[in-house]
Amino acid sequence: MSMPKGFLAAGVACGIKKSGKSDLAMIFSEVPASAAAVFTTNQVKAAPIIVSIKHIRRGMAQAIVANAGNANCWTGVRGLRDAFEMASLTAAQLGIDPEKVLVTSTGSIGHPLPMDKVCSGIKAASLKLSKEGWRDAARAIMTTDLTEKNITVKVGKYSVSGIAKGSGMIAPTMATMHAFVATDAAVDRQTLQQVLKGACEKSFNMVSVDNCMSTNDCVFILANGMSGVKIKGDAAVKRFAQAVEKVCVYLAKEIARDGEGATKLLEIRAKGARNSADAKAAVKALVGSFLLKAAVYGKDRNFGRILQALGATRIVVNWEKFKWSWTSGKTQDVITVDLKEGKAEAVGWGCDLTEGYVKINADYHT
Amino acid sequence: MSMPKGFLAAGVACGIKKSGKSDLAMIFSEVPASAAAVFTTNQVKAAPIIVSIKHIRRGMAQAIVANAGNANCWTGVRGLRDAFEMASLTAAQLGIDPEKVLVTSTGSIGHPLPMDKVCSGIKAASLKLSKEGWRDAARAIMTTDLTEKNITVKVGKYSVSGIAKGSGMIAPTMATMHAFVATDAAVDRQTLQQVLKGACEKSFNMVSVDNCMSTNDCVFILANGMSGVKIKGDAAVKRFAQAVEKVCVYLAKEIARDGEGATKLLEIRAKGARNSADAKAAVKALVGSFLLKAAVYGKDRNFGRILQALGATRIVVNWEKFKWSWTSGKTQDVITVDLKEGKAEAVGWGCDLTEGYVKINADYHT
Repeated sequence: MSMPKGFLAAGVACGIKKSGKSDLAMIFSEVPASAAAVFTTNQVKAAPIIVSIKHIRRGMAQAIVANAGNANCWTGVRGLRDAFEMASLTAAQLGIDPEKVLVTSTGSIGHPLPMDKVCSGIKAASLKLSKEGWRDAARAIMTTDLTEKNITVKVGKYSVSGIAKGSGMIAPTMATMHAFVATDAAVDRQTLQQVLKGACEKSFNMVSVDNCMSTNDCVFILANGMSGVKIKGDAAVKRFAQAVEKVCVYLAKEIARDGEGATKLLEIRAKGARNSADAKAAVKALVGSFLLKAAVYGKDRNFGRILQALGATRIVVNWEKFKWSWTSGKTQDVITVDLKEGKAEAVGWGCDLTEGYVKINADYHT
Repeated sequence: MSMPKGFLAAGVACGIKKSGKSDLAMIFSEVPASAAAVFTTNQVKAAPIIVSIKHIRRGMAQAIVANAGNANCWTGVRGLRDAFEMASLTAAQLGIDPEKVLVTSTGSIGHPLPMDKVCSGIKAASLKLSKEGWRDAARAIMTTDLTEKNITVKVGKYSVSGIAKGSGMIAPTMATMHAFVATDAAVDRQTLQQVLKGACEKSFNMVSVDNCMSTNDCVFILANGMSGVKIKGDAAVKRFAQAVEKVCVYLAKEIARDGEGATKLLEIRAKGARNSADAKAAVKALVGSFLLKAAVYGKDRNFGRILQALGATRIVVNWEKFKWSWTSGKTQDVITVDLKEGKAEAVGWGCDLTEGYVKINADYHT
């Protein structure tokens, strides 16, 4: 695969997860890169999110360090110190400025990070960095995910790669879960932020597993320019934005498909909406409905569930002409609703609600 | 029991439910009664709701007829004609004006009512009406409910009785499920509407089983004055309002406790809120959280679930001082959060999320 030039990645097991599975990921750009990010809008923000919000302000980054198994959230001053320490340790290993390191954590809330393990993990990961390390990195950020999520899109002489984790506590609001995107195109900071925000709106913000917004959600993008391609001019920006959107939509769908306990991907398309807000609201009302999700699992195309969920919103619908269709497959259901009010459209993704979801979250002990 | 004077009730099986269980309820007041109601705010309203909204405008009613097993919703002109027909048939049997009959239906959406069965059910119920028929009526409106819900509160010389059905598609918004309340106090129409609205705000509007708002929700109250007690003056109105609230809160809690698949009642108390809206929003955020509900089922007092759910709202919380407590019992969990911002409080109810909920709604076929 033609991964973006100048990026190395690694994933290692350092003992944060009780299972012994890999739990620390690192991504490194050989040169400083333009950087942009989208963060959770949850009022309760994990310590690493606070650190990354601070570091991203400069618009430059060179590394991402992420652990799974512990969210480093609601951990007070100690947690904040630990998150800064993760950046410092990574910077020291890589010989870069600590402020060029973005940090994230994912896992359970309210427990201090085992810093001895994190420290040895950072050392091991920095030694293991390689061009082939992306899948390992993708695996090391998994929590209740069953599959690692990664994709590369090639556009002429540059590429855009992304990895993500999702699974639970996934809701359609500004930035959901973790996703790290890297490209070897040269993109200025403002364009990068704009492109990432646009892509998130159409991908991660249109996904729901359980209507629950995490305290640790973040999407990072790094553009190091090592392909030699400069993204300049409307046509080039558009092409680049399409590639980033493609990466984000793929990862978002994979997150929905691998939702906790899910047996089916659910795709919802709303058309004929008065405006884009109504189209998105229609998608979110359907994708978030307990009853609709259970009906998908039960292989019952119960249109009463569609009516009930749309009716409960304040979206404008021409009920006289309203149309719906529901295609039910073995691993995917697609529902399309036509509100017959205008021309706006939206698409979003979720999954079925199963006994598995309940079991995972009832068994998930603190 | 001292049921309100002059009210008769009945429940019969007329074959609408495939199970053969009772499915048609009737309540009759020997004299015309003041009447008030609160209806679903779902845009999609079932035909009987449209008929009852029309009939309640006069502020007087003498009978309620309700069927279970078929919601008579999304049934077009035929559904509307059928709902009017239910009122007319009931009126003819009871020798009253059809506009004094309130009609409701509950069950699955999108199927025409089997009017031959409904017709024979109305005849049978009108012949079976008795002072002792309340429990039969409560049973006849059950759908996925496991227990019938009824209560009587005695206040001096008058009583307030109520029956309800709930179980699924239950969410904390204006009027949820069916509840019929009757009193033999004499209460003018305006006061009755005010008292009912106030009671609903603190009871049915503070309950969630699955965040799903039904197309058929309604709460009716009839006051026939046959006790000879006139509710006049602030003290008497207050006392009456307290009795109605007691009836509604009891029924709301029973609905939560008997939520689809539920093994536990979940009570959420929010205090220290800046204002009442924030207090209610806090309760609703917690009571509606998939993850918190699964944690209750899993017997895990995972406070990360509380933080995540509250943080995802725009409620003002003093996070430095924020306090929570979680008492976990065999059949009930009580969570209290103190937002440390003010003095407003709210309380609401829900239930745990179990494999049973998923099973019921996956197996529920159209």
